[in-house]
Amino acid sequence: MEKVKWIDGGVCAPKGFRASGVHAGVKSSHSVDPNSNTASEKPDLALILADKPCDAAAVFTKNVVKAAPVLLSRERIGLPPSPPSERGARPGETPPSKRGEAPQGQGGVLQAVILNSGNANACAPNDYANAVKMSKAIADALGISEEIIGVASTGVIGQELNIGAITAAIPELIGALGDNSDAAAKAIMTTDTVKKEFAVETEIGGKTVRIGGIAKGSGMIHPNMGTMLSVITTDCAISRELLDKVLRNAVCESFNRISVDGDTSTNDTCFILASGDAGNAEITLEDNYGSETWVGSDAWVFEDALCALCVKLAVAMASDGEGAKHLITCVVSESENEPKAEAIAKSVISSSLVKSMIFGEDANWGRVLCAMGYSGESFNPERVDVTFRSKAGEVAVCNSGRGLMFDEDLAKKVLSEHDIEILISLNEETAPGEFGWCMCWGCDLTYEYVKINGDYRT
Amino acid sequence: MEKVKWIDGGVCAPKGFRASGVHAGVKSSHSVDPNSNTASEKPDLALILADKPCDAAAVFTKNVVKAAPVLLSRERIGLPPSPPSERGARPGETPPSKRGEAPQGQGGVLQAVILNSGNANACAPNDYANAVKMSKAIADALGISEEIIGVASTGVIGQELNIGAITAAIPELIGALGDNSDAAAKAIMTTDTVKKEFAVETEIGGKTVRIGGIAKGSGMIHPNMGTMLSVITTDCAISRELLDKVLRNAVCESFNRISVDGDTSTNDTCFILASGDAGNAEITLEDNYGSETWVGSDAWVFEDALCALCVKLAVAMASDGEGAKHLITCVVSESENEPKAEAIAKSVISSSLVKSMIFGEDANWGRVLCAMGYSGESFNPERVDVTFRSKAGEVAVCNSGRGLMFDEDLAKKVLSEHDIEILISLNEETAPGEFGWCMCWGCDLTYEYVKINGDYRT
Repeated sequence: MEKVKWIDGGVCAPKGFRASGVHAGVKSSHSVDPNSNTASEKPDLALILADKPCDAAAVFTKNVVKAAPVLLSRERIGLPPSPPSERGARPGETPPSKRGEAPQGQGGVLQAVILNSGNANACAPNDYANAVKMSKAIADALGISEEIIGVASTGVIGQELNIGAITAAIPELIGALGDNSDAAAKAIMTTDTVKKEFAVETEIGGKTVRIGGIAKGSGMIHPNMGTMLSVITTDCAISRELLDKVLRNAVCESFNRISVDGDTSTNDTCFILASGDAGNAEITLEDNYGSETWVGSDAWVFEDALCALCVKLAVAMASDGEGAKHLITCVVSESENEPKAEAIAKSVISSSLVKSMIFGEDANWGRVLCAMGYSGESFNPERVDVTFRSKAGEVAVCNSGRGLMFDEDLAKKVLSEHDIEILISLNEETAPGEFGWCMCWGCDLTYEYVKINGDYRT
Repeated sequence: MEKVKWIDGGVCAPKGFRASGVHAGVKSSHSVDPNSNTASEKPDLALILADKPCDAAAVFTKNVVKAAPVLLSRERIGLPPSPPSERGARPGETPPSKRGEAPQGQGGVLQAVILNSGNANACAPNDYANAVKMSKAIADALGISEEIIGVASTGVIGQELNIGAITAAIPELIGALGDNSDAAAKAIMTTDTVKKEFAVETEIGGKTVRIGGIAKGSGMIHPNMGTMLSVITTDCAISRELLDKVLRNAVCESFNRISVDGDTSTNDTCFILASGDAGNAEITLEDNYGSETWVGSDAWVFEDALCALCVKLAVAMASDGEGAKHLITCVVSESENEPKAEAIAKSVISSSLVKSMIFGEDANWGRVLCAMGYSGESFNPERVDVTFRSKAGEVAVCNSGRGLMFDEDLAKKVLSEHDIEILISLNEETAPGEFGWCMCWGCDLTYEYVKINGDYRT
């Protein structure tokens, strides 16, 4: 059981990957208002390229309305266009999983992922054709099959993609390939204010294994496979089936536990590509995935490291939520089981009133109880304890469902920090074999969120 | 089939009711910060009194965390403290109804309802005891049984109710009784900017029947029995069982179809009291409630008028949502059935991104598609049409799931009106016997919402 070690870099930290990010001008044409055509030189096109075809897996948005690049990338990764469990349950159909996982895939093979910001290529004229063109243009230029290209887009919905700008920029994009995870991370940013790029190192089978990732978040983020765009690379040798499983698990425990605004986007996508260049003996499903003997196995170590990376990327998204001034971490403990703890924690971080309260730095904890109460989970309100905590200290505000007298000055100080924890205990007995604890992340609701989203297109 | 006629007044428009509203100073003590004790003279205590005990019904919040006055009033109206269907489904238990109705009650008898603003009397020391005291004090002063008093509170959660201020104000409250629905409507306002008070008149069994109501809304409003506080009176002679049924139906089609911020309060309560003074022959369940022969019956006429009143109160709440600058009406038509149309319309009016878009008066219709897509309902995105409409005109923005070129100047003009309609057609065939249409109401998300809720307690 190796400890996870944080290292510099992102998708190029593992062996076998190069990246680039350039300005293509995706936004500069097809804009309806010619006066707003002040095309910035912000990079808006990114490429992650592996030296050779990689085992790959991906999870995608569960929104019924799926962007064209999501539909295309689903095919590439061997997923059906839109399975019943993603359409909402209908009579006689399997209902969507309670935990919000995407359906199991088999994984696939990818060598490159091309991503653009500035246009979501969703509900737009020629959207699917343009996603195919984007994929074909990069495949032709690289001299590889278009079947091993993943495509992702983010930006405004409903406007035609400026495919000409993208294809014109491809030579420059390929020319810029190198140790440039940083440029790729910047190119996929939209309203993000900081780039999200992290990498970890661990040891598997006596070999150093690295996992690196980039992501963009900011708005239209809600825990239902709410990853927005993320590309993760690893040099670990790992079977495709296992890669698919560990990615799904890691997403459930990271990206699916954040919310910025309750809106699940049409474009959410998270890819993982494994080059196998670390030289470890391939880890596979035979490691008894999910069983007791699996704990401490190579697969377990890999998943542990992948989870750590995904949580880091997800928390960075929540912290950089549109207009956010605070990161909110909600911890629900002493729950009967983990799904209940998760549902309650998500309800709290998603509440507009809790989010406004944190913005106002006002210890109005009744709203925490209220949000717990409409989570859809049963619990005894008379047993709930609530504490606010930050590096400035902690203040217990509710004991057994009743308000405590507390030091308002201290509470103000605690809530004036950037990182705020809302600690909730249900004081329930955790059922045998269950995990009675969960942590979710969100951000406050600010004037800036409203401003950013009242004026997004122009 | 009499047409509903709007008349002046509120809860005192029907025969047999008086009302009053006074300033008790509910907020002025138990405030933690003595510097914020600038007790305004805003009325904060309301009484609605019938001349004699009335058949009555009520619906309450489905939040697991229920305020003490809700628990007390549930008992008074013959409902169990917290049935399984309101706690969220547990293994082996009946799940909550899909449509979000409260469980059926039997109705009860009430002669008076006392309501305060300024404190929710929820999760607070002595909350239940104080609700009982509030009820007993008014019962004693009126010389009636406390079993026929309904109690409701609204305001901050978790602070002890200033019961002394309330009991001290009761003589004044009783002394002020009269044709004062207006004063009662004002006394229950919190962050509301306009009072909500309406009355309708219809004809039943050759007699003029009136229904009047007051309500408060503003924040913590979401369609899950999301009425906040409302008291409705009628002079119609109607059986208790039928009164309960028509109230539940009217609430589902009105208060449960609005959202301000997605937060379902701990205190939501809607009472109806029927004095029978109109002199019509009592209408009962024997009118074949819900059957085909029921259409056009006296019960049907009554429900039609009650629905009209509840919709008027609910729309007034949405329009006066905290910080709102726009009323949003979302109409989903050509749906397979009504529940699907309702779920999709609710998802649209609840979306932070749609709400911000309306605030920004920006025709970013992709967000409408996105919100439809995570409603949990299945539909074919490729068949969806979307139009924005207001009294300034209408602009079709999406046809068969693809963006249309539209006149941005006209769109801006349409969205600059106060009342905005989002018209969605799913272009589905409505199933036989189903109703393929639903209308829901919300408001935009503004800086003021964040401001109001960042600084609510102080």
